[in-house]
Amino acid sequence: MATQRVLTGITTTGTLHLGNYVGALRPAISASQRPDMESFFFMADYHALIKCDDPARIEASRLQIAATWIAAGLDTERAVFYRQSDILEIPELTWLLTCVTSKGQMNRAHAYKGAVDANVAAGEDPDAGITMGLYSYPILMAADILMFNAHIVPVGKDQAQHIEMTRDVAQRFNHLFGQGKDFFVLPEAQIDAEMELLPGLDGRKMSKSYDNVIPLFEGGEKALRDAIARIVTDSKLPGEPKEPEGTALIQIFDAFATPEQRAAFRAELRAGLAWGEAKQRLFEQINGQIGPMRERYDALMARPEDIEAILQKGAAKARAIAGPLLAQLRHAVGLRRFQPLAQAAAPVAKARAQLPVFKQYREADGQFYFKLSAHDGRVLLQSLAFAGGRDAGEWVKKLKTEGAAALASAPVQRGEGVAEAEVHAALAALLADAQEAA
Amino acid sequence: MATQRVLTGITTTGTLHLGNYVGALRPAISASQRPDMESFFFMADYHALIKCDDPARIEASRLQIAATWIAAGLDTERAVFYRQSDILEIPELTWLLTCVTSKGQMNRAHAYKGAVDANVAAGEDPDAGITMGLYSYPILMAADILMFNAHIVPVGKDQAQHIEMTRDVAQRFNHLFGQGKDFFVLPEAQIDAEMELLPGLDGRKMSKSYDNVIPLFEGGEKALRDAIARIVTDSKLPGEPKEPEGTALIQIFDAFATPEQRAAFRAELRAGLAWGEAKQRLFEQINGQIGPMRERYDALMARPEDIEAILQKGAAKARAIAGPLLAQLRHAVGLRRFQPLAQAAAPVAKARAQLPVFKQYREADGQFYFKLSAHDGRVLLQSLAFAGGRDAGEWVKKLKTEGAAALASAPVQRGEGVAEAEVHAALAALLADAQEAA
Repeated sequence: MATQRVLTGITTTGTLHLGNYVGALRPAISASQRPDMESFFFMADYHALIKCDDPARIEASRLQIAATWIAAGLDTERAVFYRQSDILEIPELTWLLTCVTSKGQMNRAHAYKGAVDANVAAGEDPDAGITMGLYSYPILMAADILMFNAHIVPVGKDQAQHIEMTRDVAQRFNHLFGQGKDFFVLPEAQIDAEMELLPGLDGRKMSKSYDNVIPLFEGGEKALRDAIARIVTDSKLPGEPKEPEGTALIQIFDAFATPEQRAAFRAELRAGLAWGEAKQRLFEQINGQIGPMRERYDALMARPEDIEAILQKGAAKARAIAGPLLAQLRHAVGLRRFQPLAQAAAPVAKARAQLPVFKQYREADGQFYFKLSAHDGRVLLQSLAFAGGRDAGEWVKKLKTEGAAALASAPVQRGEGVAEAEVHAALAALLADAQEAA
Repeated sequence: MATQRVLTGITTTGTLHLGNYVGALRPAISASQRPDMESFFFMADYHALIKCDDPARIEASRLQIAATWIAAGLDTERAVFYRQSDILEIPELTWLLTCVTSKGQMNRAHAYKGAVDANVAAGEDPDAGITMGLYSYPILMAADILMFNAHIVPVGKDQAQHIEMTRDVAQRFNHLFGQGKDFFVLPEAQIDAEMELLPGLDGRKMSKSYDNVIPLFEGGEKALRDAIARIVTDSKLPGEPKEPEGTALIQIFDAFATPEQRAAFRAELRAGLAWGEAKQRLFEQINGQIGPMRERYDALMARPEDIEAILQKGAAKARAIAGPLLAQLRHAVGLRRFQPLAQAAAPVAKARAQLPVFKQYREADGQFYFKLSAHDGRVLLQSLAFAGGRDAGEWVKKLKTEGAAALASAPVQRGEGVAEAEVHAALAALLADAQEAA
């Protein structure tokens, strides 16, 4: 049961294009279906505020990007899918991390240095026009990752440095406050070469800044067809043999085709297929896959309240993990509730009420069972049957004292729709409570 | 009813001394009793994390400082008294402000520049050992102030610059997102000369960094007496005339004495009172005022749970103000819930349930009344009696459409223990809801 947590965020300042789909969404959604992966996807709307002070654009983008993920096939029951700004724990963790981040490290961040270089080249003050948001966003990014103790963060090459910074900050916090315990996992960057790959209309990397993108859903079939018509080709006439390798057209085709389809298309081009006809084939190939998603997308966009409901569920799942961890971190740095002196170790009824509970019981079949329920009553873990009550009791004890470490061999299964992360968080909360009471 | 909001925070990294009491606590508590003042006092424990990575020290200091405020006479029913870290809205507002704060402004902050100068003088990298907490804390301070739209912030001279920065950030946010409406009041620094005044044992300003402080409560009567015994005097013998003016001893005495007592003490010194005797008088003078407070302090320190309860009440009051304002700010920058397209303007039942409500009714006396209740049922405003229902209805309408602006002339009084700030927040929330639904 040693699953890996993967975390992916998308800044909500625009809409997604075909390059984002091929480079980020599709592989992320595919990875999220692997049984050894637990995926976290989020709309990075606090990050969006750094780049964009147009509220309408941010609002529209959040909705479009959320709808895009769902339409593209993300299983929102399985993955943890949320808006960053719904997780109130994140800004607070950001502050805790800010206090242990050295300023020198931020000075070395590529995005900041790039902005400074541009200012200096223009004869301006080095920090001209640079906001504290731009300067300190690697700390927010560290909070995004560490809040859920993600193991793997798929990023482009330009972001790899931020994962290094996150590791540094995590290590410093662990060292200062952990007292031998590591609150934070050190994440690894997963730099996927494919994320850079899809060319745009002009053959350069597909990117809004080059104005060479093919839209994913926006504008419907017509926008897709129009964009494809503008892919740059050479001026060979119909009937003339065409060399497909290296063209933007064939690279885009490849991203949506099987090896057989790729070979067949190349053969046709070499046999003289007209570019216009080739573009029609490309359109059909893409639209065959994107079309059904676009229908789902349009349906979702017509019912924002359904997306809201999905995101609220996602936020609850995410906060069930973030909340207990943040409580531990607050305690570690000294932000603690004042407790009675005499009974400083006594249970605090209110906090207890939020804790998950183990319950042992006997069914009509005469067998013994136990389950772990969340404070709202949802079943997090359900045991298999035991012949004797003592066995059940011993497993409960083991899970209580060893936490998630005991899960691998425990005869239990997770409740329906319950993420492994939530079970880990629940066991960690019980463990922390037991330690505090001890 | 045009009250002024005053906000005072104390960083929780140590205990308070007599200079803090005379310079900050006593005037703040006295100001909080003025009917035209609404006071906010908080334990700045997020700030403490910048300076201190010793959790036990932070934990102890928060408790001691909270107990000190209460023991020194703060009316926690009247003032809004809270721990910064209980107000989850503050870190979030900090991030919103971070995105509109220019980095150049932080470069000019005195505390940061002082640290850089010290590094440069030592031949180090300018940013050596400087954390992002130290660098960006003026933004957290801006959030502390703007979260409650404080008008006045009493500060030492060295902090005046931060109030300027707060005004700048507030103006930028108002300008970018206000669309003609000002979310934030521009606060004024109140630089109280007296805050600098009380001398320490050696005649320099009383300050922990000079190791010349007289403790306020810690160490009891004995510590107070011992410290006073160490006040530096000249070596005049008993019976020799002594010139009181300019001595630390007389300045400290003055801070606790009436004009008559001051004159009498001077006359005795000039007549030859021994320094040892004079110190005994000073001790008695101070202890006469501090002694009863110290007893309350010791009683409070023995019951941390009582302080916790007071702070929880304070946090609820503070969040009743912070929450509605932050909701407006989130909406302004584009962090909005997704609503049904067809009824985007329709009321959202869940949000509505949190809104305060006006209720009109007729009493057994035949007169008409109205009241404004919080969502938890507490009465925020209670009207006087009206002969006709129409008059009551018109006032309700006026308060609904004009908000707090209509309060000054409205025939209403606040519910018991209700802060004016909460009434303002409630009316603002109703106004915002009406505008959104319009």
